[in-house]
Amino acid sequence: MAGCGLEITELSTHLQGQLVAVHPAYDLAFDGFAPENVRGNPKARQAWAVEELLLAAKASANLGLAAHVTFSGALAWPYFYPWPQRPPGLIETAFDELAERWRPILDAFDKAGVDLCFEIHPVHDGATFEMLLEGVGNHPRCNILFDPSHFVLQQLDYLEFIDLYHSRIKMFHVKDAEFRSSGRQGVYGGYQAWANRAGRFRSPGDGQVDFGAIFSKLTQYDFLGWAVLEWECCIKSSEQGAAEGAPFIQRHIIEAASSNFDDFASSGTDQRANRRMLGLD
Amino acid sequence: MAGCGLEITELSTHLQGQLVAVHPAYDLAFDGFAPENVRGNPKARQAWAVEELLLAAKASANLGLAAHVTFSGALAWPYFYPWPQRPPGLIETAFDELAERWRPILDAFDKAGVDLCFEIHPVHDGATFEMLLEGVGNHPRCNILFDPSHFVLQQLDYLEFIDLYHSRIKMFHVKDAEFRSSGRQGVYGGYQAWANRAGRFRSPGDGQVDFGAIFSKLTQYDFLGWAVLEWECCIKSSEQGAAEGAPFIQRHIIEAASSNFDDFASSGTDQRANRRMLGLD
Amino acid sequence: MAGCGLEITELSTHLQGQLVAVHPAYDLAFDGFAPENVRGNPKARQAWAVEELLLAAKASANLGLAAHVTFSGALAWPYFYPWPQRPPGLIETAFDELAERWRPILDAFDKAGVDLCFEIHPVHDGATFEMLLEGVGNHPRCNILFDPSHFVLQQLDYLEFIDLYHSRIKMFHVKDAEFRSSGRQGVYGGYQAWANRAGRFRSPGDGQVDFGAIFSKLTQYDFLGWAVLEWECCIKSSEQGAAEGAPFIQRHIIEAASSNFDDFASSGTDQRANRRMLGLD
Amino acid sequence: MAGCGLEITELSTHLQGQLVAVHPAYDLAFDGFAPENVRGNPKARQAWAVEELLLAAKASANLGLAAHVTFSGALAWPYFYPWPQRPPGLIETAFDELAERWRPILDAFDKAGVDLCFEIHPVHDGATFEMLLEGVGNHPRCNILFDPSHFVLQQLDYLEFIDLYHSRIKMFHVKDAEFRSSGRQGVYGGYQAWANRAGRFRSPGDGQVDFGAIFSKLTQYDFLGWAVLEWECCIKSSEQGAAEGAPFIQRHIIEAASSNFDDFASSGTDQRANRRMLGLD
Amino acid sequence: MAGCGLEITELSTHLQGQLVAVHPAYDLAFDGFAPENVRGNPKARQAWAVEELLLAAKASANLGLAAHVTFSGALAWPYFYPWPQRPPGLIETAFDELAERWRPILDAFDKAGVDLCFEIHPVHDGATFEMLLEGVGNHPRCNILFDPSHFVLQQLDYLEFIDLYHSRIKMFHVKDAEFRSSGRQGVYGGYQAWANRAGRFRSPGDGQVDFGAIFSKLTQYDFLGWAVLEWECCIKSSEQGAAEGAPFIQRHIIEAASSNFDDFASSGTDQRANRRMLGLD
Amino acid sequence: MAGCGLEITELSTHLQGQLVAVHPAYDLAFDGFAPENVRGNPKARQAWAVEELLLAAKASANLGLAAHVTFSGALAWPYFYPWPQRPPGLIETAFDELAERWRPILDAFDKAGVDLCFEIHPVHDGATFEMLLEGVGNHPRCNILFDPSHFVLQQLDYLEFIDLYHSRIKMFHVKDAEFRSSGRQGVYGGYQAWANRAGRFRSPGDGQVDFGAIFSKLTQYDFLGWAVLEWECCIKSSEQGAAEGAPFIQRHIIEAASSNFDDFASSGTDQRANRRMLGLD
Repeated sequence: MAGCGLEITELSTHLQGQLVAVHPAYDLAFDGFAPENVRGNPKARQAWAVEELLLAAKASANLGLAAHVTFSGALAWPYFYPWPQRPPGLIETAFDELAERWRPILDAFDKAGVDLCFEIHPVHDGATFEMLLEGVGNHPRCNILFDPSHFVLQQLDYLEFIDLYHSRIKMFHVKDAEFRSSGRQGVYGGYQAWANRAGRFRSPGDGQVDFGAIFSKLTQYDFLGWAVLEWECCIKSSEQGAAEGAPFIQRHIIEAASSNFDDFASSGTDQRANRRMLGLD
Repeated sequence: MAGCGLEITELSTHLQGQLVAVHPAYDLAFDGFAPENVRGNPKARQAWAVEELLLAAKASANLGLAAHVTFSGALAWPYFYPWPQRPPGLIETAFDELAERWRPILDAFDKAGVDLCFEIHPVHDGATFEMLLEGVGNHPRCNILFDPSHFVLQQLDYLEFIDLYHSRIKMFHVKDAEFRSSGRQGVYGGYQAWANRAGRFRSPGDGQVDFGAIFSKLTQYDFLGWAVLEWECCIKSSEQGAAEGAPFIQRHIIEAASSNFDDFASSGTDQRANRRMLGLD
Repeated sequence: MAGCGLEITELSTHLQGQLVAVHPAYDLAFDGFAPENVRGNPKARQAWAVEELLLAAKASANLGLAAHVTFSGALAWPYFYPWPQRPPGLIETAFDELAERWRPILDAFDKAGVDLCFEIHPVHDGATFEMLLEGVGNHPRCNILFDPSHFVLQQLDYLEFIDLYHSRIKMFHVKDAEFRSSGRQGVYGGYQAWANRAGRFRSPGDGQVDFGAIFSKLTQYDFLGWAVLEWECCIKSSEQGAAEGAPFIQRHIIEAASSNFDDFASSGTDQRANRRMLGLD
Repeated sequence: MAGCGLEITELSTHLQGQLVAVHPAYDLAFDGFAPENVRGNPKARQAWAVEELLLAAKASANLGLAAHVTFSGALAWPYFYPWPQRPPGLIETAFDELAERWRPILDAFDKAGVDLCFEIHPVHDGATFEMLLEGVGNHPRCNILFDPSHFVLQQLDYLEFIDLYHSRIKMFHVKDAEFRSSGRQGVYGGYQAWANRAGRFRSPGDGQVDFGAIFSKLTQYDFLGWAVLEWECCIKSSEQGAAEGAPFIQRHIIEAASSNFDDFASSGTDQRANRRMLGLD
Repeated sequence: MAGCGLEITELSTHLQGQLVAVHPAYDLAFDGFAPENVRGNPKARQAWAVEELLLAAKASANLGLAAHVTFSGALAWPYFYPWPQRPPGLIETAFDELAERWRPILDAFDKAGVDLCFEIHPVHDGATFEMLLEGVGNHPRCNILFDPSHFVLQQLDYLEFIDLYHSRIKMFHVKDAEFRSSGRQGVYGGYQAWANRAGRFRSPGDGQVDFGAIFSKLTQYDFLGWAVLEWECCIKSSEQGAAEGAPFIQRHIIEAASSNFDDFASSGTDQRANRRMLGLD
Repeated sequence: MAGCGLEITELSTHLQGQLVAVHPAYDLAFDGFAPENVRGNPKARQAWAVEELLLAAKASANLGLAAHVTFSGALAWPYFYPWPQRPPGLIETAFDELAERWRPILDAFDKAGVDLCFEIHPVHDGATFEMLLEGVGNHPRCNILFDPSHFVLQQLDYLEFIDLYHSRIKMFHVKDAEFRSSGRQGVYGGYQAWANRAGRFRSPGDGQVDFGAIFSKLTQYDFLGWAVLEWECCIKSSEQGAAEGAPFIQRHIIEAASSNFDDFASSGTDQRANRRMLGLD
């Protein structure tokens, strides 16, 4: 691949990770993610998915990769809207079980020296990520793939998200989104198709994400990973999205400053001088 | 009741209406809405609910009421987030079935001369209401209870909603809400308790709903129903909410203008004069 | 022309169309649009203008063009501010007359197989376009040239305008505008020169129009016409405006997506599966 | 009147002032403002109007009033939209003539010791008021009645307007307004009736005017006039508007502070101390 | 006092606390806070101030008060604007010294069983409070008086401040403020007098503080202290401010809800039911 | 230099100008700006600085430059926050002294035919610049270097600043900034390092400054000076900032329009025609 000027940055097990934790209401919908022989058999499907994850850890290590991305799946998914009201303990039970399923996988990634990054989607925000993280005992390999497009659709502050969770952010997807609600439809989207939803994913640069601010924050916090283009646009073709996306990312890359801009004016003061400036001596 | 200065404005079958259409994922959660003898038996529970609705139509007529409020229930509820992606036809099937269940109930309300008003919640916005309405052949009794608090939580434009659907709005709940997202949480709320959610219901006047604009629009469109206080506040006690709510509503009631404010300046022109003003004759 | 890499996209009769309907208050101001022999003679001027329009229909057909742009003129122009208050029937009379004048012209365009597109300016917004459209019996050739710059100056939502009227939008001008009011001046502009007005036209990219969102909406609604640069800038030279405008448009052109981005995850479900997912069977 | 607890605060000649300067396009529309014997005769109508103004000056003096309100009329009214473009000199000519007509009236008010306040409407903003003011040689009696409702409809910054023109503001009308544009309509309102316009006048407190900020600014600049309720609401009845308006104004009246709130901490320094604080001595 | 219907809620040593830490640049300006015999003698002045604080702790205990308010003073005050750039260690030195001075005072308050609350002003935001708090070893008596008016002038998010620091907020001042910048002036205010500054303090209800949201957040976090009116208004008289302030506060007091509003719908589920709802058993 | 394609646009004496007026609280901090032999001796340091300014005037003239930039220094710097409250006369004294120091320097620049431009920083906004300007008797050489980045940090309207002061703006620095406050920190920045401050300087294009609007306003007012890149970014390296900055400026340069865009439609009217259009003859 190097001969083609390409480099594998990370492997992904989005589909497999999702199958680690599926609520029965979605069994049919998710069966297509699995090989035929485990479809219609949630238990076998889950076992297959876990096995895939364990292999992904090894494969990542073999390829010399530092990070891996997946979905967590979600057992409480039918209940995130607070109607019907959730019985006490339901969410705790769901997250205990979720953590229990992921702990051995995280250990496998740790052994492989690879960060496991959850795309914040089934675990859908900071609050839910914290519940998962607590469930796995703040496991050092339990990390985040930062994709701001989801947060636009949630009306969540994606810049403050970086301030809060930057120490856990190890991967980054450059995907855009826009949200324009109306009198017919808001964030829940009325079961409409993507192009007709108030919130919709867009090619990088075509949505409302402030990528300049994101690259600034990631640079500020010394993020060392890749900025990976993810194309999901309900309007523009993938060919055009890809052709425009690479230079879009390039234009946003920041070479970090190595010195303060006002060092020129340093007066070479010392602690004694400091105390004199404060009127202390 | 009249002796106590009270008046029954409308009857409600929120809980029963919800049971007309329940996806199995919520069977356990909704069983508490039904009498014991039909719990654990979705078919019987649904039959009981429909019967209750039919009785409500008659009771409303007996009480001389013009409108009745209920929930529609929702068969597609686990699938309103577009993940997993919805197979083609799923939503259409869900709404066809929903319409089929409500059509006879709507007919019963029509016979009773009572408007059936769906609180826009399981059918959650204008787009979904339109699907239901189409399914029941634009039934004249298929109407709306307007409650702006839900729309704040959906980031939906509740004023434009009135512009679009005012001919179907026959009831009105005065409930407030606020939405303040952060870097931890957005509209989906991370399974948090009400007080900790970005979007939360509030006592009238304590949230972000612009009730002055709502009462203006309802007056503009000659809305003739009641403004009914609904208290659901995660902060303030129901006693205080009730004590403050009635005068809050009173302060917002608008006595409609009966003439244009600039009639004073009328010049008594006629069609010939109009044509002269336009330079036509 | 093809040899020069040029193509005629549409013909225009802005000036002639304006003369189809002139209120006498503007007779002097508009006389410069007409040839000398009909100046000072509004009747003859109007007849000349109508004839020009009829010829434009033929010329467009001869050139194989699908659309043509013009102004409607406006008989009620002195009365759009609601002071003095308008006598009842004045506006209806104005629009009846306007429709009567345009109907035969629209028929001529229909015969020529060409869409007549009114630039929304003398008919100045959606409400007035609807009055004209109704007056001409929803004539299929009565269409719109969409130019967002006018809408910025009107503080009108140009994106929602596309949602409402996209089926009638057959032409598109890429012109920009900005609006910055102060304590001295607002939308009416105090008779100031263009550069000193709160609302002013600008070269594409120099104003406040969100062209990314416009191209997205036009793509979403399968708009098939040209994006035509119109330069009217009170600050920047026309040469620079032209040199920058073409690549500006090019950068915004969207190649429509031909498939949904989440097809990859399709589970191949069918109607029976749908009913099972909904808990119906 | 004093016996009824009433007081005449100012007289008004809105209708008569308007007739001082009428463009012929509005002759018919404004004829209703005049007595029958001068209708259809613009010259006589103007003479009558001027005479009324001169009498109003005397009447105001007789009643011991300090200010009087009127409209200026407007000769350039058909041309405030910059289409058709205005020939050079048109606006200057219009304002020269307007100033010439008002100068003798202003002199009469000066002789009577009464401020003439133009409601900023036909002279519609700060820029046009400045043109009139310059035309009358900065006449000390050429003043302003401040009515923020017009400025909401113009999207003009009514708070900065007070900062700019407070020395000329001698009267104040408490009238409210709201502006909510859509994809159908913006500031020009599509010839719609008041209730259907994007910008519409409202009863005090029912619109978007920030009266708290206005009363603060007027207090800050020592405005000494009355706060006069003006009811023009397209939704609410005049009876309700009046009943609510008086207490609305009362709630906003500010008793000016007579001392600085941080005087308590004064150190009694003097000029020598000041120089020492600045390190100068 | 009880006989007059009054109650002492807390004592204050704003002036004395300020004198605990004064940079020499302000020696003259602050001398007026001290009795004559220690003026011009910063050391003696500081000793007097500390003594006053220690007495205030005892006095508070004698009066049975739970909290006390003061200013911290500030040694680094001349350096909060980052020009000239601050030499390394300057700020750390300033806060070390500040903490050292306050630690014994905090111990005295601890002994008296009284919370010492710093009004966030010389220590001017969350970041500086954290530095002080760290310096005194997270002393349990090092707490905050929350006054949102200062935060408006700093353009700091006063609602998020409550989210971050509510466990340390033990006192609350109801003071309002507004910020309206222009092209002449921003947050630094150009040395103007209060009424002419972009940011200025106002009577409660006359500024931009969202007190409804503040009382909601304080109720949410079970704040048990008093809401104390502080009047500092550059426009309105203190008499009017006081007369309006008490009912203003009363209107905002929230009686906390004692139960969840959707308990009515509880289905009485248990852990086994939870697991079934999640599809786990 | 011309051989390298370079041109000296202006000279700068930022550091020397600052030393013309230093409050003792900053003597130590600013000593590093001066040569060793005058450090620790404020009088001698000031004399040296003034001499440098006088030489800079001559050097600018020798190089044929039209403008020169400097800082004014600031005597009242420790007192710009209104705490402690400022004794009467303090600010006036500070600005009188400041003006007295700069007057002879301004005269020297006048003699050299060079505009002296103060970067609005120690004199920090329009209000303070006006005080200085008044102090030097509206000296024609007392001008402004416009740098919008400072105004972002002050939350000052940098576009209105151009409207107000354009006749004095003779230089322009292209520097960017952003401001994002939180619940921890606002405009005063809590003594944090640049990267951690709510307000921070950024490379051109990486901040929130609307340079398109600035270049438009400067073109509108016929600004003839250079657009000079100033790099001060707390995130991006100076090398990248420089490489991107030059084309960034180039993209924003506007070639002024030489004619009105609607001249095409001129009707060639004259004064007689104007009067007829107004209905005057």
